[in-house]
Amino acid sequence: MLRQDSPDAPSSTEVGPDGDRLFPGDPSTRAIARALYERIADAPIVSPHGHVPAEWIARDVPFTDPASLLVTHDHYVTRLLHASGVDLDDLGVGGNAVDPRQAWREFASRWHLFAGTASGYWIEDELRHVLGIDATLSAETADKVYDAVRARLAEPAFRPRALFERFAIEVLATTDDPLDDLHFHDEIAQSGLPGRVLPTFRPDRYLDPDCSTFDSDLAALLGATSQPGTFDGYLSALRERRAHFIEHGATSADHGIEDPATVDMTDDDARDLFQVIVAGRATARQRAAFRGHMLVRMAEMSVDDGLVMTIHAGVVRNHSTATLRRFGPDSGHDFPRSTDFVRGLRPLLERHGLARGLHLVLFAVDETVYSREIAPMASFYPSVFIGAPWWFLDAPDAMMRFRAAVTESAGFSRGSGFIDDTRAFLSIPARHDTARRVDASFLARLVVEGRIGEQTAGTIIDDIVGPQPRRVFKL
Amino acid sequence: MLRQDSPDAPSSTEVGPDGDRLFPGDPSTRAIARALYERIADAPIVSPHGHVPAEWIARDVPFTDPASLLVTHDHYVTRLLHASGVDLDDLGVGGNAVDPRQAWREFASRWHLFAGTASGYWIEDELRHVLGIDATLSAETADKVYDAVRARLAEPAFRPRALFERFAIEVLATTDDPLDDLHFHDEIAQSGLPGRVLPTFRPDRYLDPDCSTFDSDLAALLGATSQPGTFDGYLSALRERRAHFIEHGATSADHGIEDPATVDMTDDDARDLFQVIVAGRATARQRAAFRGHMLVRMAEMSVDDGLVMTIHAGVVRNHSTATLRRFGPDSGHDFPRSTDFVRGLRPLLERHGLARGLHLVLFAVDETVYSREIAPMASFYPSVFIGAPWWFLDAPDAMMRFRAAVTESAGFSRGSGFIDDTRAFLSIPARHDTARRVDASFLARLVVEGRIGEQTAGTIIDDIVGPQPRRVFKL
Amino acid sequence: MLRQDSPDAPSSTEVGPDGDRLFPGDPSTRAIARALYERIADAPIVSPHGHVPAEWIARDVPFTDPASLLVTHDHYVTRLLHASGVDLDDLGVGGNAVDPRQAWREFASRWHLFAGTASGYWIEDELRHVLGIDATLSAETADKVYDAVRARLAEPAFRPRALFERFAIEVLATTDDPLDDLHFHDEIAQSGLPGRVLPTFRPDRYLDPDCSTFDSDLAALLGATSQPGTFDGYLSALRERRAHFIEHGATSADHGIEDPATVDMTDDDARDLFQVIVAGRATARQRAAFRGHMLVRMAEMSVDDGLVMTIHAGVVRNHSTATLRRFGPDSGHDFPRSTDFVRGLRPLLERHGLARGLHLVLFAVDETVYSREIAPMASFYPSVFIGAPWWFLDAPDAMMRFRAAVTESAGFSRGSGFIDDTRAFLSIPARHDTARRVDASFLARLVVEGRIGEQTAGTIIDDIVGPQPRRVFKL
Repeated sequence: MLRQDSPDAPSSTEVGPDGDRLFPGDPSTRAIARALYERIADAPIVSPHGHVPAEWIARDVPFTDPASLLVTHDHYVTRLLHASGVDLDDLGVGGNAVDPRQAWREFASRWHLFAGTASGYWIEDELRHVLGIDATLSAETADKVYDAVRARLAEPAFRPRALFERFAIEVLATTDDPLDDLHFHDEIAQSGLPGRVLPTFRPDRYLDPDCSTFDSDLAALLGATSQPGTFDGYLSALRERRAHFIEHGATSADHGIEDPATVDMTDDDARDLFQVIVAGRATARQRAAFRGHMLVRMAEMSVDDGLVMTIHAGVVRNHSTATLRRFGPDSGHDFPRSTDFVRGLRPLLERHGLARGLHLVLFAVDETVYSREIAPMASFYPSVFIGAPWWFLDAPDAMMRFRAAVTESAGFSRGSGFIDDTRAFLSIPARHDTARRVDASFLARLVVEGRIGEQTAGTIIDDIVGPQPRRVFKL
Repeated sequence: MLRQDSPDAPSSTEVGPDGDRLFPGDPSTRAIARALYERIADAPIVSPHGHVPAEWIARDVPFTDPASLLVTHDHYVTRLLHASGVDLDDLGVGGNAVDPRQAWREFASRWHLFAGTASGYWIEDELRHVLGIDATLSAETADKVYDAVRARLAEPAFRPRALFERFAIEVLATTDDPLDDLHFHDEIAQSGLPGRVLPTFRPDRYLDPDCSTFDSDLAALLGATSQPGTFDGYLSALRERRAHFIEHGATSADHGIEDPATVDMTDDDARDLFQVIVAGRATARQRAAFRGHMLVRMAEMSVDDGLVMTIHAGVVRNHSTATLRRFGPDSGHDFPRSTDFVRGLRPLLERHGLARGLHLVLFAVDETVYSREIAPMASFYPSVFIGAPWWFLDAPDAMMRFRAAVTESAGFSRGSGFIDDTRAFLSIPARHDTARRVDASFLARLVVEGRIGEQTAGTIIDDIVGPQPRRVFKL
Repeated sequence: MLRQDSPDAPSSTEVGPDGDRLFPGDPSTRAIARALYERIADAPIVSPHGHVPAEWIARDVPFTDPASLLVTHDHYVTRLLHASGVDLDDLGVGGNAVDPRQAWREFASRWHLFAGTASGYWIEDELRHVLGIDATLSAETADKVYDAVRARLAEPAFRPRALFERFAIEVLATTDDPLDDLHFHDEIAQSGLPGRVLPTFRPDRYLDPDCSTFDSDLAALLGATSQPGTFDGYLSALRERRAHFIEHGATSADHGIEDPATVDMTDDDARDLFQVIVAGRATARQRAAFRGHMLVRMAEMSVDDGLVMTIHAGVVRNHSTATLRRFGPDSGHDFPRSTDFVRGLRPLLERHGLARGLHLVLFAVDETVYSREIAPMASFYPSVFIGAPWWFLDAPDAMMRFRAAVTESAGFSRGSGFIDDTRAFLSIPARHDTARRVDASFLARLVVEGRIGEQTAGTIIDDIVGPQPRRVFKL
């Protein structure tokens, strides 16, 4: 999975002692899985959606210390430490000043909590394969590993740009505010990096009147684009910023919403509703209608400008208000809820679902929708694609359930390809490698059960790791 | 699975090169699965619910061409082709005139899309085992396979009645309009076919005031039975038509509904509501109540006349209005939604759930209800049976999940036996064979895990393929 | 699993002919599963929640006959017999006088119905391993087995206290009415039993105005504690009874509710609402609000007095009113419904979710919540623990799905340990043994797939069977 051209980098692509990781136990299935995996183990990484800051790559910002790299900013990790009784303060969450070695010790001494989790698997992979450190984490080894990681991070080979190259990243998409001028992306494009870093248009805060900063965000948007405070001005402002993103290489716009309910209405009704919203007189129901309508408008703009529309739905954000106040958002208490895509997206799909060129990628954290809603819709609408397992489902068993849930209705062609959706830069190879191993294992089972031939399985896995995400995300 | 008495028919029942299809990879489990499967591989097909037109069998209508046989009328197939960008017009959907060879080419050149899908599996099986054609579909082989299939279809051995016999179909139920005079069923009964073709009473359109043709359908029903336009007349008309179906061999009545909500009310309230409905003054809520009440009435009639009541619930029909307008219903955009059987069916079950002789078979496309609702209800109510996996779930992995979800609560006795629910006549053996292989594999795992003995497993699989559906559907 | 110190007891812990039960078929995985299982096969049983009457242990009440022991009072068993057409009267359900041998014959002659079910597995285990009877049940063997079981039950070694010791039960929690004086628990504590029997505070009927006996229960509660009929008096009465339970060894309070909706409100609003409730003037909405608010109050009391709060949610009780009237509650027609923990519990968790020392254990029968809601919440809130699979999900495949659903988000540390939740005393070893075998099998797969080391797996399974439930239930 990693390029071997860095002399400091440990070798890791060979199918060695742990080379059969994630493959099924049955020997005949495992052999086929291994053969399928070997076809694509070293394929370049295509990452069409994620949260790595462009600045890291543009400025080649060194990682400061092991704790902020692997603990403090990873809410998968701080979450489980918090559940076990650690105060988020002691991990530096929310910007609290903390001795990183002390935060690391809190983590390392509780490493056993992560056995069997996705985070545990990624971090083990990062330590061993990216950082070349074989020690097992514990209270006893905490300081030793901390020092070893810190020493690695001081080496030029472990700065973002060197890792970007070593990871063989072909495309990495970031997630950006619509008003971002995207100068880091410009810098990267002009820097000769052997790969592309593309922005993604993420307008949630400008579309949801229930967002606490909506009024000021709206004002800023209109101000930045010199548009009037009408619905038409607002739409023009959004269109203008999308164009700005497209000029800087963006191929997709992302929407993170709790409920994928969409609402169609006439232009006049939308104009009236906008005035009620702006005047601060809207009811909860009207605000929800506006939010739902703007998804339809975003699809309309995607039909026009070609940006792929991704929807990440079904997360109740900031469940613990006390934690939100102390530590801000993304501090580990966002939880899934049941989601209804079939009825929720109907107004949007009635309006735009058959439009040529529209790509709508649906991501869910309620896994019941895979077989019930997303696969059936993606196997009819040319615009709908099945987003890869996301967030709580971005782990080997959940990925395997996902494949079993969607394939029998939709085959393999309607998927998005793997999406890492991460800010944890060092985990990117581990995450893609996990998906590749799971897909190889799933396909191997179909081969063993006589459901597809081994040659077909090879063609499919070749497609999944590169051509498919390039196609779906218009890369 | 197929009778060998047709000289033109390729042999297919031997456990040969692909004879282990769908069996698990572990050798010891596979050996037991194979042994269990061999017990029932050649058992006659009992098909108590499906959509093959009686006319095909009565008049022995030859299949006209490969495209209309395998592509145009199979919404599983046209759906996925549509998702990949093919216009439904080009496949002849909705009665559009199309060169069948051209439609076939559209399909064959996209055969790879079907890898891993249920449709792909069935069609491969049909080509190889029913039609005796071994070529793999592709743009290159499209014409060759088209010609080979067309040649087969011209042979007497490949007309419906010959295939019916070769498939060893013991019972085949059709699905019919309540006003159908059922003369094709009469013809078949008098024709000496070695098997029964039974009608099924499907009254949805006469029960749902939200159906666009409800008013005219109601008028036709009352006219045909010379009943007055009162609620009592309406009930009498329905009873009369049920009696007509029973006289022609029907053993079940089928209900396809979006929401399995049922509503009980007094006779007087029902009479009043009927008048409001007929007068066209009913609110959406009243129409839903009427629809829900009529399910209770249908159960009441089933208690009286013995027709098995099957409920297929949870499908949002005709999601894309534009597609409906151009291509009509059943054009591939019906999608599942979450379903609540426990609370929805309670009024019906409070009234009739303990009635002697009532058989109520529940089919779901929301697979979460298997372990949560259907298995628990079927393991208490003598009237409730667990319908086999249906539609989007009618595929090997989904069937396996189904067995694992229901068996630990309800055992094997409360199932319906396999239901093919298909209009695709040539796929019937493949579908039943799939279910038999999955059940053999599931049972083999229980044997290997020491949960049942191999002899018990044999008894169970013997029961599942024949005695069970005969018992549940009163055949 | 059973102590060998009773000369009459058959040996059963050796890994003999059926010693590999429930282990996966793949030989390498099976070998690891067996090794993991052997570490903990004989570990003492910790049972922090269940329904065995304390009187049985206090007074060493002999089991009267095979039918009342294994059939009449087990609604898993009577339920499936009822579905197959047996009248509950003929099984003695609801206190109906019945010849136990005749009830046993009804059961034995339908033993085949239980193949593959959890009940079938437990009863087979009880007959073979607890009672030492190897015959297979059938109409033919019914009397012979009946006589053999009856003979066993007459032996001193098969009375509750001897079995308690032989089963190696370290802790057994009962479930008790808040007004119970707990004298049986006193007797047990003073009796020298080698293990603890602890009461559990179960106040549902005193908290839910929709409970038919609420008014009289409330009066009895206030009377017993000499508290005034105000909200404050009511809270004091509840606190007083909790204190009584704690004095008698209770460590938890249990809540069985249909909908885990919680409602926060001010003290004044709660006082007003209480008066409306008491006056019998509350609307359905107000009664639901009161019920939801009392869960928040119970959590508040748990923060104060340290009782672990367990929530068993999502069951629609007494689905069949006719059956309820004839046979009373718990007669087999309680069914799961879909459940929303994330939004429902939010008010409770906003108020108390971060409180030090609060333990809130969530049990579900809607298995979709495992990966979607319970594991995510338990991997953030220090107070939330993942309850073991319960009721319809308390079976090998469901347990395996449970582990796969929760582990990747939450690891192993956030679980409750296995909970048998049973009144069927003889089934306790079989239930715990099942969980141990499933956990060993799940961990073995993770080892084979290179996701955890075998040593780690050993540490985890050691923790799960004893330290974990002791920790979570404060034993």
